[in-house]
Amino acid sequence: MTGSPSPTAPNPGPALLTDRYELTMVAAALADGTADRQCVFELFARRLPDGRRYGVVAGTGRLLDALTRFRFGPDELELLSRVVDEDTCAWLRDYRFTGDIDGYPEGELYFPGSPVLTVTGTFADAVILETLALSIYNHDCAIASAAARMVTAAAGRPLIEMGSRRTHEEAAVAAARSAYLAGFATTSNLAAGRRFGIPTAGTAAHAWVLLHDDEPAAFRSQVAALGTDTTLLVDTYDIRKGIANAVEAAGTGLGAVRIDSGDLGELTRQAREQLDSLGATTTRIVLSGDLDEYAIASLRAEPVDSYGVGTSLVTGSGAPTAGMVYKLVEVDGRPVSKRSSAKESRGGRKSALRRHKPTGTAVEEVVFGHGSEPALGPDDRVLPVPLVRGGELTAEATGATLDDARERLRTALVAVPWEGLKLSRGEPAIPTTFPQG
Amino acid sequence: MTGSPSPTAPNPGPALLTDRYELTMVAAALADGTADRQCVFELFARRLPDGRRYGVVAGTGRLLDALTRFRFGPDELELLSRVVDEDTCAWLRDYRFTGDIDGYPEGELYFPGSPVLTVTGTFADAVILETLALSIYNHDCAIASAAARMVTAAAGRPLIEMGSRRTHEEAAVAAARSAYLAGFATTSNLAAGRRFGIPTAGTAAHAWVLLHDDEPAAFRSQVAALGTDTTLLVDTYDIRKGIANAVEAAGTGLGAVRIDSGDLGELTRQAREQLDSLGATTTRIVLSGDLDEYAIASLRAEPVDSYGVGTSLVTGSGAPTAGMVYKLVEVDGRPVSKRSSAKESRGGRKSALRRHKPTGTAVEEVVFGHGSEPALGPDDRVLPVPLVRGGELTAEATGATLDDARERLRTALVAVPWEGLKLSRGEPAIPTTFPQG
Repeated sequence: MTGSPSPTAPNPGPALLTDRYELTMVAAALADGTADRQCVFELFARRLPDGRRYGVVAGTGRLLDALTRFRFGPDELELLSRVVDEDTCAWLRDYRFTGDIDGYPEGELYFPGSPVLTVTGTFADAVILETLALSIYNHDCAIASAAARMVTAAAGRPLIEMGSRRTHEEAAVAAARSAYLAGFATTSNLAAGRRFGIPTAGTAAHAWVLLHDDEPAAFRSQVAALGTDTTLLVDTYDIRKGIANAVEAAGTGLGAVRIDSGDLGELTRQAREQLDSLGATTTRIVLSGDLDEYAIASLRAEPVDSYGVGTSLVTGSGAPTAGMVYKLVEVDGRPVSKRSSAKESRGGRKSALRRHKPTGTAVEEVVFGHGSEPALGPDDRVLPVPLVRGGELTAEATGATLDDARERLRTALVAVPWEGLKLSRGEPAIPTTFPQG
Repeated sequence: MTGSPSPTAPNPGPALLTDRYELTMVAAALADGTADRQCVFELFARRLPDGRRYGVVAGTGRLLDALTRFRFGPDELELLSRVVDEDTCAWLRDYRFTGDIDGYPEGELYFPGSPVLTVTGTFADAVILETLALSIYNHDCAIASAAARMVTAAAGRPLIEMGSRRTHEEAAVAAARSAYLAGFATTSNLAAGRRFGIPTAGTAAHAWVLLHDDEPAAFRSQVAALGTDTTLLVDTYDIRKGIANAVEAAGTGLGAVRIDSGDLGELTRQAREQLDSLGATTTRIVLSGDLDEYAIASLRAEPVDSYGVGTSLVTGSGAPTAGMVYKLVEVDGRPVSKRSSAKESRGGRKSALRRHKPTGTAVEEVVFGHGSEPALGPDDRVLPVPLVRGGELTAEATGATLDDARERLRTALVAVPWEGLKLSRGEPAIPTTFPQG
């Protein structure tokens, strides 16, 4: 079928997951001698999505993994021979990133202007990573940032990520990773379990009940196969009858019931009362059905035990992309920046630190260049860490785990001023300042 | 690095791109004997995204390709042995889809309730495809539906897809495919060029200009490497000077200038005037910079030659997922459907036809079950086609091309009543009716 890849095609590496212009710029730079100029590119967000108060860094691990596989083999070069000249193809054949990368570790917060990633190398070495780096960060940060708000809204109740079906099949795997990083307990996505070791969970679909002659038969069969600790979906026909059938099938030791439609607050109260009256006092109530952070927050007073979140998670709850850009900020030690009307940026290589009160509350993101390093107070924290040196992953990079990132975010959110955790629209939780050297 | 796949991992097939509950349902159904019940699942949208007037079918080719690779090998089974029992693992090891699939061909329009895909097979055979089918259709239809509106708004001017950096790196490739299907001229995404044969295009980034000692040097070099027909990005510093530098570097035969920021309408008029006054009367003007269908429409009166569209395309312009569901509608010939408060659906296997006036204008989407087939008028068209029979792709499936889909959409949109092509929010362009048998 034209328009489809060959079923026997080998695993494509990430090197073609990029914009054509990166390659033609490399070709032109190799031709005019600028390809070897030492450059610094910075990946950052000019602003947060409308009304959001913080962003969550995610994607670093995925980018570094992709970097180690970023190679132009025969398969890639076959296409590129029609895009660039022979000398460029020869250069691409030998391409290995040999520069340095610094960045905020995964799970760290970011704010407008935070230098989330800094790539240092020759122009050709570094420009070629632009699209891939942006794709990964724009997606993963968007999902993690939305997920973190849902975790806050859930106030300690576990969240199940179940949005795979609402987004591109590979984006789904990355979304599950970002959600776990942000504090979700589990994912329904099996590939995310396989690739990233994230705990997987699942209940059953309405199809399971409809497949059987009646609801009791479906429930009995599920309990027989999966044990009494399973979750029975009780809203296919009549929820009250469904709960009665569920407890009859599994006994009072039933693990959980799931409700996926209707007025969830009211239904939850009724379900808890009914379960308790049947003696199923330990049976949990799982809610799902178009939940977002606002719906989760509105259910805080109800006897919910956990939430399944799908669409709103994988679409970033209204902000499906983080708006990160990848800008050339320095050439051979000289700061550079676009200067026309809109979309200005600050030239020069930068670092950043976050200032905190002695109480631990964050007060300011300070983004500074060489020559304007501010004094580091006892409660302040320098944010970027070295990730790549001379093309090789650092110990900080190879030692990083998803669980570290999860813990880092948890700690960072504790330090956010209380109004920064509000779900309502507002300004960034802390201001970003740019001291002049 | 934990949280990252091994760099030496083999190409994972699509079989784990699914929700855990599909597999546990298969396990329970194998145990209780319902796995072999003959089932019909239907993939459809209950409604269109808020205010949209039609949807565009996309993803069929990608799903059918994935189906041919949907296998549980040692890599998948290693994980699944911790999720399901041994008998289920053995069943999965031998899994091949052996049922039938019918569906709207790619590029066809859909409306609320249109049976976009119908999967017929045993419960276990068919339920296992739910998540993958939904991921592909929910993503690809969302992008194609947004893209089609942009193509209408551009009124014949070519559109370049350049949104890769704003979405997950693999979603980007699928988005480029959907955009081309919907009538975009080219994509910046090289992998989309490689996998799907889509024409690729590109200009240069602001980094290109900033890399050089000055703008004239950058332009001269780009023209030397890529020819005078290249597109020069003129808004890094001062657009008026940029255009003068561009024509000086390339001569009056310069291919195009690109403007990526500022008041695009005003800047376009000034640029056209300046280019003409310099004798560069054939030099085209390419606009980019956060364009969506509304911005494109508002530029209709300006002397724009083409548009580059990024963020709004890959995020579905406000509707990043198509809201498709995959519902069990028939078991052993018996119609089934969920009956509780919300999210109801119609049971029974269905087909559909679109009625047209003798003038060719579409008037109605008729979705019907067995026993209520309406008479087919001379201007009506039956919509689903056979895609898979006994697990094998049909000639309709293997013969389908992206260019066919593109042409199919073009034709289908010509038949939409004029108010259905309006960009403003409204009702579906034609009503869906469900005659009772």
